[in-house]
Amino acid sequence: MVKVGIAGGSGYGGAELLHILIRHPEAEISWISSHRHSGKLVSAVYPSLLGFLDSSFTSLETLSPSDLDVLFLALPHGEAMNIVPQLDGDPVIIDLSGDFRIGDPDIFEQYYKLPLSAPEHQKDFVYGLPEINRSQIRAAKRIANPGCFATATLLALYPLYEEKWIKGPVFVDAKTGSSGGGSSPSPGAHHPRRSNSLFPYRPFSHQHVPEILQILDTSERPLVFQTYSAPFIRGIFASHYMALSREATSEQVRDLYQKYYSSEYFVRWVPECPDVNYVRHSNFVDIGAATQDGFLIVWSVLDNLQKGAAGQAVQNMNLICGFSETMGLGFPPTYP
Amino acid sequence: MVKVGIAGGSGYGGAELLHILIRHPEAEISWISSHRHSGKLVSAVYPSLLGFLDSSFTSLETLSPSDLDVLFLALPHGEAMNIVPQLDGDPVIIDLSGDFRIGDPDIFEQYYKLPLSAPEHQKDFVYGLPEINRSQIRAAKRIANPGCFATATLLALYPLYEEKWIKGPVFVDAKTGSSGGGSSPSPGAHHPRRSNSLFPYRPFSHQHVPEILQILDTSERPLVFQTYSAPFIRGIFASHYMALSREATSEQVRDLYQKYYSSEYFVRWVPECPDVNYVRHSNFVDIGAATQDGFLIVWSVLDNLQKGAAGQAVQNMNLICGFSETMGLGFPPTYP
Amino acid sequence: MVKVGIAGGSGYGGAELLHILIRHPEAEISWISSHRHSGKLVSAVYPSLLGFLDSSFTSLETLSPSDLDVLFLALPHGEAMNIVPQLDGDPVIIDLSGDFRIGDPDIFEQYYKLPLSAPEHQKDFVYGLPEINRSQIRAAKRIANPGCFATATLLALYPLYEEKWIKGPVFVDAKTGSSGGGSSPSPGAHHPRRSNSLFPYRPFSHQHVPEILQILDTSERPLVFQTYSAPFIRGIFASHYMALSREATSEQVRDLYQKYYSSEYFVRWVPECPDVNYVRHSNFVDIGAATQDGFLIVWSVLDNLQKGAAGQAVQNMNLICGFSETMGLGFPPTYP
Amino acid sequence: MVKVGIAGGSGYGGAELLHILIRHPEAEISWISSHRHSGKLVSAVYPSLLGFLDSSFTSLETLSPSDLDVLFLALPHGEAMNIVPQLDGDPVIIDLSGDFRIGDPDIFEQYYKLPLSAPEHQKDFVYGLPEINRSQIRAAKRIANPGCFATATLLALYPLYEEKWIKGPVFVDAKTGSSGGGSSPSPGAHHPRRSNSLFPYRPFSHQHVPEILQILDTSERPLVFQTYSAPFIRGIFASHYMALSREATSEQVRDLYQKYYSSEYFVRWVPECPDVNYVRHSNFVDIGAATQDGFLIVWSVLDNLQKGAAGQAVQNMNLICGFSETMGLGFPPTYP
Repeated sequence: MVKVGIAGGSGYGGAELLHILIRHPEAEISWISSHRHSGKLVSAVYPSLLGFLDSSFTSLETLSPSDLDVLFLALPHGEAMNIVPQLDGDPVIIDLSGDFRIGDPDIFEQYYKLPLSAPEHQKDFVYGLPEINRSQIRAAKRIANPGCFATATLLALYPLYEEKWIKGPVFVDAKTGSSGGGSSPSPGAHHPRRSNSLFPYRPFSHQHVPEILQILDTSERPLVFQTYSAPFIRGIFASHYMALSREATSEQVRDLYQKYYSSEYFVRWVPECPDVNYVRHSNFVDIGAATQDGFLIVWSVLDNLQKGAAGQAVQNMNLICGFSETMGLGFPPTYP
Repeated sequence: MVKVGIAGGSGYGGAELLHILIRHPEAEISWISSHRHSGKLVSAVYPSLLGFLDSSFTSLETLSPSDLDVLFLALPHGEAMNIVPQLDGDPVIIDLSGDFRIGDPDIFEQYYKLPLSAPEHQKDFVYGLPEINRSQIRAAKRIANPGCFATATLLALYPLYEEKWIKGPVFVDAKTGSSGGGSSPSPGAHHPRRSNSLFPYRPFSHQHVPEILQILDTSERPLVFQTYSAPFIRGIFASHYMALSREATSEQVRDLYQKYYSSEYFVRWVPECPDVNYVRHSNFVDIGAATQDGFLIVWSVLDNLQKGAAGQAVQNMNLICGFSETMGLGFPPTYP
Repeated sequence: MVKVGIAGGSGYGGAELLHILIRHPEAEISWISSHRHSGKLVSAVYPSLLGFLDSSFTSLETLSPSDLDVLFLALPHGEAMNIVPQLDGDPVIIDLSGDFRIGDPDIFEQYYKLPLSAPEHQKDFVYGLPEINRSQIRAAKRIANPGCFATATLLALYPLYEEKWIKGPVFVDAKTGSSGGGSSPSPGAHHPRRSNSLFPYRPFSHQHVPEILQILDTSERPLVFQTYSAPFIRGIFASHYMALSREATSEQVRDLYQKYYSSEYFVRWVPECPDVNYVRHSNFVDIGAATQDGFLIVWSVLDNLQKGAAGQAVQNMNLICGFSETMGLGFPPTYP
Repeated sequence: MVKVGIAGGSGYGGAELLHILIRHPEAEISWISSHRHSGKLVSAVYPSLLGFLDSSFTSLETLSPSDLDVLFLALPHGEAMNIVPQLDGDPVIIDLSGDFRIGDPDIFEQYYKLPLSAPEHQKDFVYGLPEINRSQIRAAKRIANPGCFATATLLALYPLYEEKWIKGPVFVDAKTGSSGGGSSPSPGAHHPRRSNSLFPYRPFSHQHVPEILQILDTSERPLVFQTYSAPFIRGIFASHYMALSREATSEQVRDLYQKYYSSEYFVRWVPECPDVNYVRHSNFVDIGAATQDGFLIVWSVLDNLQKGAAGQAVQNMNLICGFSETMGLGFPPTYP
């Protein structure tokens, strides 16, 4: 049993950690902070948890890392990098923000519009995408948990880049549900605007782009990445368009993905088109594809708060702590 | 042709006025203010209006009432009552807020949680519900435009109270779409919470209650009024439950409503159950009912930004200015 | 470990049973039938279950009750009553339809528009609402699993009727999500009509009324029950309006509910207003109330496929089989 | 004043024609048929039209073309081509289906899975996209009204193909609202599946592809077209991705579109990203773009029942009848 703390437990990422860890047989939630809701019962802020958790949110100042085995940082971008340098003790740290994903101060500032502090701590963090980085994660103490869009696109494109199946640019049309924007009301998630519509945002410049570019070699196969706000609550639906450098049947495409992911519990190859409905509230990534006339479309779908955030964070915790990788995560998606 | 000004043109009530008045053959929009968006093009804030209006929002300070024939006040509660006493000139004033609906300082403060200023101006305002107050509206210069819930419930219950068909209390279960909460992001209209749910708010204490009680004699037939946030964008769906003081068939119920409303263009008696779908983007109120075993359910449905706000305000303007009452408003609802 | 069969596994009730039982530590799914999808992989019809279940739907004809410990019937109304008389073997039978809830042929036909067959089997079935009927359920072999609306209203009103706190009629305004209408496309669940609207259906005559009337003594406190189609997927939100026969503060109302439900795991008293969001994908019923001036509003909220159907069915199975009542059901709701 | 008939008036395309033509100052609706609803009041099927239209749907057999000036065919694919050869009289015919868009029997059958009948009538029909084909439309008597996706993509790509700005393939990620699937309930528009999700359909093979290929010369710049079901009611949101054959700034992209569309009333260039919200219930197409590093994304957005079907059909009628092109169509979009 590990003692777990969550900094920023009242945001959607933190709340999803709570919902998962409550059921996790090896985790005990022993500390939860919230800026906005410090002092309030967790169940007053998340009445879904009534009866599951008697705790109240506390303030970040009460953090005592040496009392924790695992510390999840689920804070807004720019806060974790100020906290990490001051931490004593040696808990496992899993940061759900972008603060330790990039490393390069110029690139970080370009995309996050924030200066990068704590540059000397950047190298301590391993990029926590288990399907690509598992062995490094197992050996790590500090994890930069991937972004939701980055997880969807990296898992979709990694085999194709590795095997050089792509000719020319790849275009990614990536749609997110409204929970991806966080728990604070905002114009883009205001129901009268969001609920019956669809619109692009951040043309060419979403902050998950640089972490994708760190994994894929896009020097000869550039990536164009465009994000959209879609009117569902949870989910990333990412469509990847490209020309193929070689002929490939549907079966060969499937075999390529099977080669990379057949032993990956959380990656499911779907024979039909994927659908946000079939991954919701689970840690699965569903991948499917269609090909014709030398072109390929690959679709990847995940729940942005699970595999795109808290679920993957717990998957990383499981790897580091030596638990079964699927512990607390092996439940099916909910549908309808 | 009348010159029209709109104070608070960037809220949803003000924006709906713009959408209506653009098509109104006798109105010319000559002044539009916005706190938040002063200086911005209207079409930058409401891109739906691109090509229809080249104006920019200005600040409230530029208001020159004597240049206007009609001034709509579409401001947050508590602002109109500070502005009205300082106005020079003599434009028709139509206030969409609650500031001049109540009159009684104690009741106002109880429901609005604000002190009532300008009490000496309260008596100048006529409650602008044309189907009940038409002749007074025609003779008025200042209108307190009714609340959306109040319009729905008053039109549903007025014939029953007038004819004393009710025995005992009336219970109102009134659901609103998210646009009723205004254009500013708020927790109750945050898409992840609002879009797949339903929840009550303000138990027993919605601010539209007192304006209802001013019209209906509830001394022996008390009214219990409860509001809900529903996951649609536009619409009030109000359900009214009661026991009858007399026997009545469905036909007799229909005849009662026909007696009151058969010559009312904007009130439609529907033979089947009403539906938010069939009034959207129109100034109609659809009313239907079901009765059995001495009990009666009456349903009234309207678009909260049209008959519940801006549409009714223009209907009032038409009456005061001597235009056809339906001018600029006689288009059918949109469906689907 | 019990061997479980599901007749009608491809409807939403059956599919929810699958989603629950997959995680149930004492149940083994050994037979699943579907009219529409016989021969197809379960995961082809419910891709959410990909990787969890390799089975295919079979036809009802392959049913061998003696090979099963528990048989769930999740068929359209009118089918279970034709099957039950022909069953050999002696499995526990839990019927999710209305076929064995009513017993009285005239009332059944009035509400279900179907003749009641198998009248001699009706008395073998216990109404499976554990919070009211637990001891009878434990001793039973055959369960008529309650309707979703009935569960919501019975749990909300039972203490008030038992203690005679009500004066005069009770009005119920009950809203359902679209999954309540089943998995077959229908006009009322067609997205262009359903998703941005709300509308009543079956005035005064929903088929869950008679099962409510069997439990509550409405001779002096009549019940008026009205159902609505609301634009969310899962959830019953039932509002109950009434006058009180005695004075009661909010605290006394709460104490009354605590008296009845404080030891009930699946009934949660909520200090604020309930919300569909906070019970979704769980077996909880959240109950809250507001009172003023001698009137009381009680709200009950549940997930229509969980506590309103499959969750409650598994709760009944647990009771009958001697498992912990919460086994396979004790996970928190999902939110957002 | 022209006498108008609508065959298939109870589908969404036909109903949108009704909603538009009711307000059209030069059109008189004199005949409306419906397979499903023959004999029923139009306002019983579309209660939104209560008070606007007293007519009933009639059967197709009552059609007397010589009594009509304009006949809209709003029938399922495959029906218009059986009717047209039998028509006497000489009304203007505007067909909203795909029956007369393609001409080539092999291509038609490949995409529509139907044999093409009436091949000798194909050449009588002009493809009714006014922004590209206006002069031919003005001279025509028979119009093949374009598909919703085709309208969005053709208007977005036409300037780029004409000016040869594109290098290599263009990928189109095109999302449709649920009303695009028609008024009959279907699995893809079943609310529990559709309302909180997004999913692809018909990979590479949507039936609007061939009409696009007839206008654009894709021999060297192939087009990959993929469609998605999105959870809004109305709207096409089409994203077009490509590499540029020349350097172009954002201003130059804008200027290109201005060159083609600055005098087009129904095409609006938007300085920010387009949004389904801002074209709803109007005949406008909003086009915007973003460019970086030699890549270009062009977005086009329209209301699938207006510019994507009935609105464009009325635009074509206006052109043929010599009315103002915007007559009955020049109202602003609704928002929110």
